Amino acid sequence: MTVSLRKARTVIRKTFEKGAEMGLKPLSVVVLDAGGHVIAFERQDGAAPGRFAIAHGKAYGAVMLGMAGTAQMARAEQQAYFMAAVNGVYGGQVVPVPGGVLLKSAKGAVIGAVGVTGDTSDNDAEAAMTGIEAANLIGEV
Amino acid sequence: MTVSLRKARTVIRKTFEKGAEMGLKPLSVVVLDAGGHVIAFERQDGAAPGRFAIAHGKAYGAVMLGMAGTAQMARAEQQAYFMAAVNGVYGGQVVPVPGGVLLKSAKGAVIGAVGVTGDTSDNDAEAAMTGIEAANLIGEV
Amino acid sequence: MTVSLRKARTVIRKTFEKGAEMGLKPLSVVVLDAGGHVIAFERQDGAAPGRFAIAHGKAYGAVMLGMAGTAQMARAEQQAYFMAAVNGVYGGQVVPVPGGVLLKSAKGAVIGAVGVTGDTSDNDAEAAMTGIEAANLIGEV
Amino acid sequence: MTVSLRKARTVIRKTFEKGAEMGLKPLSVVVLDAGGHVIAFERQDGAAPGRFAIAHGKAYGAVMLGMAGTAQMARAEQQAYFMAAVNGVYGGQVVPVPGGVLLKSAKGAVIGAVGVTGDTSDNDAEAAMTGIEAANLIGEV
Repeated sequence: MTVSLRKARTVIRKTFEKGAEMGLKPLSVVVLDAGGHVIAFERQDGAAPGRFAIAHGKAYGAVMLGMAGTAQMARAEQQAYFMAAVNGVYGGQVVPVPGGVLLKSAKGAVIGAVGVTGDTSDNDAEAAMTGIEAANLIGEV
Repeated sequence: MTVSLRKARTVIRKTFEKGAEMGLKPLSVVVLDAGGHVIAFERQDGAAPGRFAIAHGKAYGAVMLGMAGTAQMARAEQQAYFMAAVNGVYGGQVVPVPGGVLLKSAKGAVIGAVGVTGDTSDNDAEAAMTGIEAANLIGEV
Repeated sequence: MTVSLRKARTVIRKTFEKGAEMGLKPLSVVVLDAGGHVIAFERQDGAAPGRFAIAHGKAYGAVMLGMAGTAQMARAEQQAYFMAAVNGVYGGQVVPVPGGVLLKSAKGAVIGAVGVTGDTSDNDAEAAMTGIEAANLIGEV
Repeated sequence: MTVSLRKARTVIRKTFEKGAEMGLKPLSVVVLDAGGHVIAFERQDGAAPGRFAIAHGKAYGAVMLGMAGTAQMARAEQQAYFMAAVNGVYGGQVVPVPGGVLLKSAKGAVIGAVGVTGDTSDNDAEAAMTGIEAANLIGEV
């Protein structure tokens, strides 16, 4: 099972709708495939220019480790040097906080990840989950 | 003058439509702002996983140098070591071939760039120009 | 709205004047545009050779995140691993302390940033604000 | 003998004046010290955003190798792989073409370098030499 571009677009559009409904700051959303490669990305007008890298880092770490942002953050708080080292081996591309959401098949396999940034990490993650569910995908925050 | 997300989406959708009409392979399209930062990206189903970096490299070099892909390719063919060095100073992120298209204001200022990859460089550039014109933007191939 | 070279020169000159008036150590000042690219930089005689990278890192992080140095420092103190990860995704180019000052338009859009280094972070920031105001620009410390 | 900030400013201002007189495109000029570290940089309005890296690369290679841009280009044309390797060892920061001008003391010691970019390499170098001479410095193109 793979994430189609059509599904990725739905995730992004519905995440933005949820962000607007929640009154969040402008969001940026990336959708990665099971190999950690970008399928689609959008940055809302008014977001800071560097948001691609943050969104990507949240999602990339999730795919590469098979661990969603919340679990990564817990590990970073327990053992900061471990997550710093993980970041090093992945070329500095891991941002271990909520808003990095795993996409899973019904059987539990990781089929990609979504990265959302722009508001607080928890709000980012909440908007992401709404987008993921709207696309009939299964997310793990 | 800046490129809005709405305009960027139109560029991408219309580039894909032109690609389908021309019978091209699956395309990937990125739209960057005037600072070389990603506004939007989409990779069509069936495209190779690494297409983000190619699309980005075509557009990024165009913005950073203020020089479209065709002019970059001419320089690379005349003076290969110069374009190799340029690539070095930009962290290896420059792909100097057609398909990197500058976006310009009516007064000629660079306001961003589009990068298209997936078919031949010339076909990539032709599809990009159709997308750019459909968004009422001015392109330089 | 963009920051002209003329404005950037005024920021630098007036920051140096304020530094002299306050009796600060030799300062280095960079002015970046809205994409995080260097418009102008000067290092005063007697400053350490590596000051460009520090000044740049203060200003670059501010632009890329849309967050001034004071807010970055607060985040780094609350969640050190997050700012370390952010630094990773921006290639190690972020220095999250005061002295990185956002430049904003009257409507609140980020139009660039100033980075000052040489004395304490707070003194750097104070001198920067004087320079920014002398150029009729709006700063956020 | 070191290059003062005052001298560096004169080099930059006079290089711009010469560029205007010659009808060149907007220029960017960097002045480095004997250790290859930035003293001052300015990018004229209208220049492409990525010009710092090109100007810096021209001057940095000159200082690090003790060889001006013209000599570097000759070496690149004879032995491209050598200059590519040199670029590698200096972290991709060498641009081996004219416009990278050594600054020398009366006794022939390298005291810094100037990097100019924006027009053709030869025009860049000509404008640089005018700026250097106006500051009573000795240049080697």
